[in-house]
Amino acid sequence: MQETALRNKQWIYRKRPVGRVSHEHYELAENSLAPDIADNEVLVQSRYISVDPYMRIQQAERNSWEEPHPLDIVQRAGVIAQVVESRSSKVAPGDWVLTYSGWQLFAKCHQSEIQKIDPNAAPVTTALGVLGMPGRTAWFGLMEVGQPKPGETVVVSGAGGAVGSLVAQFAKRAGCRVFGIAGGPDKCKYLRDSLHLDGSIDYRAFSTTAALSEEILKQTAGVDVYFDNVGGRITDAVIPQIKLRARIVICGSISQYDGALDAPELGPRFLHHLLFQRARVQGILARDYTHRMDEMLAIVAPWVKRGEIVFPETIVDGFEQLPDALNSLFEGKNLGKLLVRV
Amino acid sequence: MQETALRNKQWIYRKRPVGRVSHEHYELAENSLAPDIADNEVLVQSRYISVDPYMRIQQAERNSWEEPHPLDIVQRAGVIAQVVESRSSKVAPGDWVLTYSGWQLFAKCHQSEIQKIDPNAAPVTTALGVLGMPGRTAWFGLMEVGQPKPGETVVVSGAGGAVGSLVAQFAKRAGCRVFGIAGGPDKCKYLRDSLHLDGSIDYRAFSTTAALSEEILKQTAGVDVYFDNVGGRITDAVIPQIKLRARIVICGSISQYDGALDAPELGPRFLHHLLFQRARVQGILARDYTHRMDEMLAIVAPWVKRGEIVFPETIVDGFEQLPDALNSLFEGKNLGKLLVRV
Repeated sequence: MQETALRNKQWIYRKRPVGRVSHEHYELAENSLAPDIADNEVLVQSRYISVDPYMRIQQAERNSWEEPHPLDIVQRAGVIAQVVESRSSKVAPGDWVLTYSGWQLFAKCHQSEIQKIDPNAAPVTTALGVLGMPGRTAWFGLMEVGQPKPGETVVVSGAGGAVGSLVAQFAKRAGCRVFGIAGGPDKCKYLRDSLHLDGSIDYRAFSTTAALSEEILKQTAGVDVYFDNVGGRITDAVIPQIKLRARIVICGSISQYDGALDAPELGPRFLHHLLFQRARVQGILARDYTHRMDEMLAIVAPWVKRGEIVFPETIVDGFEQLPDALNSLFEGKNLGKLLVRV
Repeated sequence: MQETALRNKQWIYRKRPVGRVSHEHYELAENSLAPDIADNEVLVQSRYISVDPYMRIQQAERNSWEEPHPLDIVQRAGVIAQVVESRSSKVAPGDWVLTYSGWQLFAKCHQSEIQKIDPNAAPVTTALGVLGMPGRTAWFGLMEVGQPKPGETVVVSGAGGAVGSLVAQFAKRAGCRVFGIAGGPDKCKYLRDSLHLDGSIDYRAFSTTAALSEEILKQTAGVDVYFDNVGGRITDAVIPQIKLRARIVICGSISQYDGALDAPELGPRFLHHLLFQRARVQGILARDYTHRMDEMLAIVAPWVKRGEIVFPETIVDGFEQLPDALNSLFEGKNLGKLLVRV
């Protein structure tokens, strides 16, 4: 048992953002943590801390799927950590675990709050990516709600992101023609060369929604499944190009997270497109499929083990970078899953 | 066999409307029709001619579910007619039939284009209403896509209309709490007193979308199924009040038919509500269920026969009134199914 107090660091969520979230909404606290733990508890040290777009949703003033993230507590987040001390039979010191202990260096967790990770099965970071929440979201969102059929055309927005890059690959494996929408030529090249998509569309290259929409039609000849991570103008451009009985999966609306959840911005009405095409739009959340994680892992983990799935990661070094890393998600700077290594 | 030529009248669709459709987009043609018919043909005389909101969709410049209605032909429409002459074994003179012969007094139809109506089973006009296309739309749209469960809360927009008034009653029979949105105190009184809904909301009584939305929440305490016939600001007010796993059926968007199909108007973005509530929006068309008409009739026709379903009708007299009658749909003047008697 470690006797001396640990120097802990925590990012405390202090102030609700109105627009973009940044370090001004957080306070970096340093404090000491007594290392004593109770029966069935473990002391863990964070190694990789997650920043995810959903965090900004929870900071919006209005309720989303739950109460807004409370002020004056540690920012909640998924964490890949190593066990420092254990009074649980589940894990021993040195073991890797997935926890939800948030933006802090050390945490005490009840054994029910940790999941052991096997570092030999796959890189530990995959527990926050392809074999974790983003993977689950991509898999069930596409398969259960998108219901892709071989030969159909799938369009993914935010295709360079943690979820989008997986959706695109899962759709390819389902026998679909897959087109990714992303920001900038580098991401688009990645979609074609590394993910082997049938086409990519750099939305930044189009100054109007109409021009973007025309390009989408030109490349795809119509959309059967649209997996939407971004909302806003990109989605405005895709919807008029849906085909009969199209399925639109609303997984995220990242373009709207810097304030438009509290005061929605205006966009063109589109319900008539759903009417004409008898199309379906459905929202999904990762948590709806948590209890079915094993189903996804049974299929996707072997693909990962055999190196058949690409899971891009952007890793930022330094605990102090967390708020800026979160902010950078909304500038689309990350390729794949964004993690902060501490 | 009638020997002398018949004096026919036809409303010819001449000019594509930009905003509201009215008589200026039609020409009243009078011509003579030789009464001779071929084998398997019938000559019919129109008795009730339908005006439906979908007609305006087909007049929009852009394609909807099919090519726009051609110019310079008789306005297409459902018609309840009587057989004048028959060279078909299916019907005899005097028989009532449902046809799709459009806005004209007389028409020659192939026997494959008519369906015989039994005037003793139900009033003949029900073939254009509760036992026809509007009934089918209401039944399958609500049951198959809305999937109401007993105890759930259903909101219907355009609840005083041909489809909405039926949806509301079908939802009551499914054990739901049902609230109708309609324009004006008379329609709202009708919804409560004659359709026995749990509540009605006169959208005209609210000057802002926010106030209307608040009233919807106050009356309903949240919406499980929203059956939408109108779109626009009323739908803007309903969507923020949906509950977890809500189903939204897009049956029509009548508020958008006077031009906004060609150049969509702006409204508040709402996809985040679908995300948060994991809700579904789906468009439906009557034609998707044409082949399942018998399923609906097997259930609904006995209700009609026993007088258990109210099917309001607004009947306008005079062939000359057809364009104005169509126009009046968009002013919400009709209660229930609007028909022109000729």
